[in-house]
Amino acid sequence: MDWLAQRGVALEDIAAVVLEVQDQFHANLTLEDCLESVKAVVAKREVQHALLTGIALDMAAEAGAVPEPLLTILRRDDALYGVDEVLALAITNVYGSIGMTNFGYLDKKKIGIIGTLNSRQQPGMVHTFLDDMVAGIAAAASARLAHNSLDHTR
Amino acid sequence: MDWLAQRGVALEDIAAVVLEVQDQFHANLTLEDCLESVKAVVAKREVQHALLTGIALDMAAEAGAVPEPLLTILRRDDALYGVDEVLALAITNVYGSIGMTNFGYLDKKKIGIIGTLNSRQQPGMVHTFLDDMVAGIAAAASARLAHNSLDHTR
Amino acid sequence: MDWLAQRGVALEDIAAVVLEVQDQFHANLTLEDCLESVKAVVAKREVQHALLTGIALDMAAEAGAVPEPLLTILRRDDALYGVDEVLALAITNVYGSIGMTNFGYLDKKKIGIIGTLNSRQQPGMVHTFLDDMVAGIAAAASARLAHNSLDHTR
Amino acid sequence: MDWLAQRGVALEDIAAVVLEVQDQFHANLTLEDCLESVKAVVAKREVQHALLTGIALDMAAEAGAVPEPLLTILRRDDALYGVDEVLALAITNVYGSIGMTNFGYLDKKKIGIIGTLNSRQQPGMVHTFLDDMVAGIAAAASARLAHNSLDHTR
Repeated sequence: MDWLAQRGVALEDIAAVVLEVQDQFHANLTLEDCLESVKAVVAKREVQHALLTGIALDMAAEAGAVPEPLLTILRRDDALYGVDEVLALAITNVYGSIGMTNFGYLDKKKIGIIGTLNSRQQPGMVHTFLDDMVAGIAAAASARLAHNSLDHTR
Repeated sequence: MDWLAQRGVALEDIAAVVLEVQDQFHANLTLEDCLESVKAVVAKREVQHALLTGIALDMAAEAGAVPEPLLTILRRDDALYGVDEVLALAITNVYGSIGMTNFGYLDKKKIGIIGTLNSRQQPGMVHTFLDDMVAGIAAAASARLAHNSLDHTR
Repeated sequence: MDWLAQRGVALEDIAAVVLEVQDQFHANLTLEDCLESVKAVVAKREVQHALLTGIALDMAAEAGAVPEPLLTILRRDDALYGVDEVLALAITNVYGSIGMTNFGYLDKKKIGIIGTLNSRQQPGMVHTFLDDMVAGIAAAASARLAHNSLDHTR
Repeated sequence: MDWLAQRGVALEDIAAVVLEVQDQFHANLTLEDCLESVKAVVAKREVQHALLTGIALDMAAEAGAVPEPLLTILRRDDALYGVDEVLALAITNVYGSIGMTNFGYLDKKKIGIIGTLNSRQQPGMVHTFLDDMVAGIAAAASARLAHNSLDHTR
């Protein structure tokens, strides 16, 4: 996903988030396993569409190409604006609803790259959607690991 | 909602859609009742945020201010692009999940202004989000009428 | 899926619904294609969980094994009860949000087996969830056909 | 809500969870404020329907009145079963999508009564749905506080 790279997010960064939260649930889980799961998630059309849309909105807000009052809402990542969570849910759901809990936890704890994106909100930069998209991908990749792992142990 | 008016949608147009589909379920339902319900829906913050976001994306696509491949997807209203439905669901849900069925029906039958927006896709105009947003508002307004009506008859 | 058969629904009945609504969008679509798509949907764990849960609630309501006021709500398929739609959405979403529109349309038009289930509500029988589950499966199978078809034609 | 009390959950328990997670965001937030918000959430019809349905399923599983394989899934609160999260989302959404993040966090951290319900899973007791329902109510009550608070300070 070129778009993610251009916005400063490597798939390895997302895999590291997955590893941090899933390590305790899977014996011998490696960063490589997590990266493979992240790649499977971002290969899904539904995920790509949500991701492209969220990043396009961040970029439009950076360029000032969004009418008010939405521009101000996006630039300050207004706590009552929930469209970013709605888009993230479309990502999280590709491996079923069990990803939702992970999403909420990651979005709140801002682990790894998610926190970096959040704190990186310098003047002129907008990551209102990107941090939620990344949390959504990490949550979906975690759900995918859970589905695969439990299939094997039964 | 100035944004709706600027995109060629009057609240009365949406009320007319509500009247057409709800007429059979409510005795003596008037256009005025439907308009009041539409106004209650668009007064909700969650609805306004989804609506502003969808319209901003339509406008950005019209202006060519969206990177590829999203630009082409938005301009041709790609049948596999589902983010417009996701945003519409955020609108539809403000009066609970019973609005979802109405949304799907309206979105498919393209009644009234919804069909007009769809056929109005002239070169340079993009209504990929707007028709779904309007169907979502009409569906939510219908759900609100159902909630209120059944409260009174019990 | 034994549970579906025991509740009077054959996978072929659902495939027939898919064929009826998707025929116009796919050249040379056969009942066999639709059946294969329905089978792929019901093989998904998320779908099976939602389906089992909905049918268990229908059966519990038939047996009177649900406390009031929920028992009365389920027995009369209360128009304001939206949990059946929520469960159906979990099914519909397995192939992304584009299934939602088909769900709403099918749920309203009650095509084929969906209508049969609805009218079959004899004293003692409860299909409050089943008709929505079946519409959800048909909608997801339609979305799957759309994804596959458009992949091939590009 | 008698059903909650019968299942061992006082509205005050849920209010205490809200206070613990929202305290840092609202100056002078009291348990009374949180309780009022919880009461507003459980007064909503959509919330009551989801709650009654989830509790009915827990009770049916306790009574063994659910067919296999669902009975085993519900009794062990299978990690891949996501219908409880789906129902909780219907609750969380009554004050918009900003509640989703709080839900995921609460569901994972199992604060207060949510953790008690989880650990209380003695032989014969099933709280597969109840802990998610309670987390959903607490998340919605938190979202409601956020909406009201930010309205006042602007």
